[in-house]
Order: sequence, then structure tokens, then C-alpha cells
Amino acid sequence: MNAPVSEHIVKSYDAELQRLTQEIQRMGDLALAELEASIDAVVKRDSEAAEIVVGSDGAIDALELEVSHDVVQLLVARAPMARDLREVMAALRIASDIERIGDYAANVAKRAISLNQLAPVKPVHALPRLAELAGELLRDVLDAYRDRDADAALLAWARDEELDELYTSLFRELLTYMMEDPRNITASTHLLFMAKNIERIGDHATNIAENVYYLVHGSRIGQIRRKGDATASTVLHGPAAD
Amino acid sequence: MNAPVSEHIVKSYDAELQRLTQEIQRMGDLALAELEASIDAVVKRDSEAAEIVVGSDGAIDALELEVSHDVVQLLVARAPMARDLREVMAALRIASDIERIGDYAANVAKRAISLNQLAPVKPVHALPRLAELAGELLRDVLDAYRDRDADAALLAWARDEELDELYTSLFRELLTYMMEDPRNITASTHLLFMAKNIERIGDHATNIAENVYYLVHGSRIGQIRRKGDATASTVLHGPAAD
Repeated sequence: MNAPVSEHIVKSYDAELQRLTQEIQRMGDLALAELEASIDAVVKRDSEAAEIVVGSDGAIDALELEVSHDVVQLLVARAPMARDLREVMAALRIASDIERIGDYAANVAKRAISLNQLAPVKPVHALPRLAELAGELLRDVLDAYRDRDADAALLAWARDEELDELYTSLFRELLTYMMEDPRNITASTHLLFMAKNIERIGDHATNIAENVYYLVHGSRIGQIRRKGDATASTVLHGPAAD
Repeated sequence: MNAPVSEHIVKSYDAELQRLTQEIQRMGDLALAELEASIDAVVKRDSEAAEIVVGSDGAIDALELEVSHDVVQLLVARAPMARDLREVMAALRIASDIERIGDYAANVAKRAISLNQLAPVKPVHALPRLAELAGELLRDVLDAYRDRDADAALLAWARDEELDELYTSLFRELLTYMMEDPRNITASTHLLFMAKNIERIGDHATNIAENVYYLVHGSRIGQIRRKGDATASTVLHGPAAD
């Protein structure tokens, strides 16, 4: 809390912060549900379910607007400092990351609708595992935020590498699959973009982890790790590759 | 400006806003240069130039941190209202969009490095036109922001549809190209992602346009237009397609 303030002010300041935290928890739960539902729509080839996911993303966007509105009110009314300021700015940044995670889940659902118009392709099997891992990371960082647990945030942050590796192997599997039979190319391309969306969800989960760490310690996660997409440098030379 | 304040305060408040605007112009110029340099690296197959683009992206990230720091200071110190508050929040949001545009340009450069390890592929020719259009949109919205010109922002916003159409045709060309010869698949996949990155740059340019419009009018751009990626619903059935 900022320097000498009345018990009343302190209480209501805590209440405002708690409200922000709850809005963000709610956003996170919605984003997680969106991710799971989008993958479900892929696995079950259920385009109606996918449409529902696409339609539901607006709720997360609306909550982000609410958070950023509340943040501005808090900054203006309270002029918070130090940890209090970090709390408020972390809320703003984490809300923005969750909003983008929702967008990526909605993109997966959109492509599921197209995929369902094509013959089933084998590599679909790998998508749920990728999404499951991304969902675990997201759940972990959201819990770390709820508990203001920098260590838990750091551990989740480090696990993004697993997701990147899984994404890279799926990416290579898809390329090989396309090379084997051109009829697989359109469906595989959708799967490539879906996998990429899920990999990006992991990146935003790590952003959240970094914000939790900074919020608690007031310092950045030291180690710099090259984040994300090793497939950007994937070079498969024709069908024989790998 | 907020209600009665001394001439001195007003001056320095304007100066702070002007500083924000200048930081954002600088960010925008860097992002534009990054985009142009990344496409140049693709066309000339110049991996060293691509490496330089990747390395230069940090400057934009640093400027975004500066902007968000300045914004918080302004909110806390001035408690701006109405148009002044919109000015400050627009700066924050526009800086975030430009930062992401820089990321997308850097992604294009990363993939250029991989592409240069593969035999040249024909569809590369379409990428510069796509990037050129994205660059025009970005330049237009940055000018609209500099001039606080809501009409110019609206016109640029509407032009994103051109970019989406160009992206969609390139996407279909790439799919067909992959189907013709599996040896093209790896390179074409990189091109697919590069084109997608450029299409996303257009989306962020339209976000900036929306923020300029809101900043000036205090109301949102009315018409809702389905933004972006029609290829998410592209379904090409085998080599014969299109």
C-alpha cells in the first residue's frame, strides 16, 4: 500500500485490486474453456461446436475492456507506487495476453470448420496433445498469478520449451505428410496454422509468467531463452527429408 | 485540456503529449523500415540483411516500454479526462500495435533466412506486392495519427480488405504450387507463414486506424467488417482445385 492512508482507503484499494484479479481469473477460465472446446470441435469434427467457440470469444474481449477501464480508474484515482503500481500494470498486461489467447483459440475453431469440409487426415491426432500442454501451461500461469507465486510462474515459463518441441515435431510430421500425398496439402495447411496458433498460446502463457514474476520481485526473469518457433528455420528438402 | 490550470501546466502537458506522439512516430518509422528491409532480404536472398532486421526489432520493443512508462506517469500525475484521456490511452494501444507489427516483420526476416537455404520458388514474386500494400496502410495510419485525422484513418481502415484479398490469392497460389510439386512444399510453407505475418501487419494497421478514429471522435468506427483471414475457410480439393 502507499504511505499513510486511512484503514477505509486501504480496504477499498485492496477490494479494487481483488476485483481486477477476479476479472482476470474469469478471463483466463473463459480462454481455457475456449481452447478446450476448439480442440474438441476438431477431434469430433463438430462445426456447430466450433461456431459456438468463435461466437464466444467476444466475452473475453469485453472483459479485457473492463480490466483496462478499471486499471485507468485505479491509476488516476490512486496514483499507486512500487508493488501497487506493478499489480495494476500486470493486470493490464495479463488481460491483454489472455485476450490474444482467446483470439488464437477462436482461430483454431475457425479452421476446424474448414477442416471438417475435407476428408479426415491422420496428423490431426497430434493436435489435442499440443493443445493439452498449452492448456496446462495456461492453467499453471493463471494459478501462479492468483497465488502471486513467482516460483510457480518461473517453472511454467520454462515448460514452454516442451510445447515448442512438440510443435516442431508436429510441423515436420505435417510437411512430410504433405509431401507424401498432395491431396493432404489443404487440410495439412490448416493444421499447420492451427498448431501455430496453439504454439502462440504458449508464448502468451510465458508472457503472463514473466508478468507474475515481475509483479512479485520487481525484476525480470533473468535468463533469456529464444522463444517459440524453431520451425521458422525448418528446412526439409523434399519427401526424403527427416 | 482539463479544467482551469496554469499556462505553465498546460504547456508542459502539451509537451508530454507531443513527446508521446513523437515516440510513436519513431516506433512507426522503425517498423516500416523493418518491414521493407525484411522483404528486401527475401527478394535479394540476403540472409545477412535478414539477421540485421531480426536484431533491430529490440529498438521498437524498448520504445514501447518507454511509451507505456510515460503513459503511466501521465495518468498518475495528470489524471486526464475526456479527449486528454483518449490521447493517452490511444498512445498506449498504438504503441502496442506497432510493437507487434515489428515482431511480424522480424518473423518474415527469420523465415527469409530459412528460405535462402532452399532453391528459389516462383511465388516469392507475390510477397513484395503484399508487403508494399501493408506498408502503405501502415504509413497511412501513422500519418492519420500524426494529423489526428479520423477520416484518413477510416479510409486506411477500409483498405485492409484489399490486403486480405491479395493475401487470399497468394495463399491459393501457394497451395496450388505445393500440389504441383512436393519439392516446393517446405519453401512454400515458409512463404505461407510470411504472407500470414504480413496480413497480420495489416490487421494491426487497422487497429491503429480504429484508435485514431476513437481518439478524435470518442466513438468507435461503426461498421463491423469481418477482419482478415479468408484463407481460414479455404478448401482446395487436390491439385485440380482453383
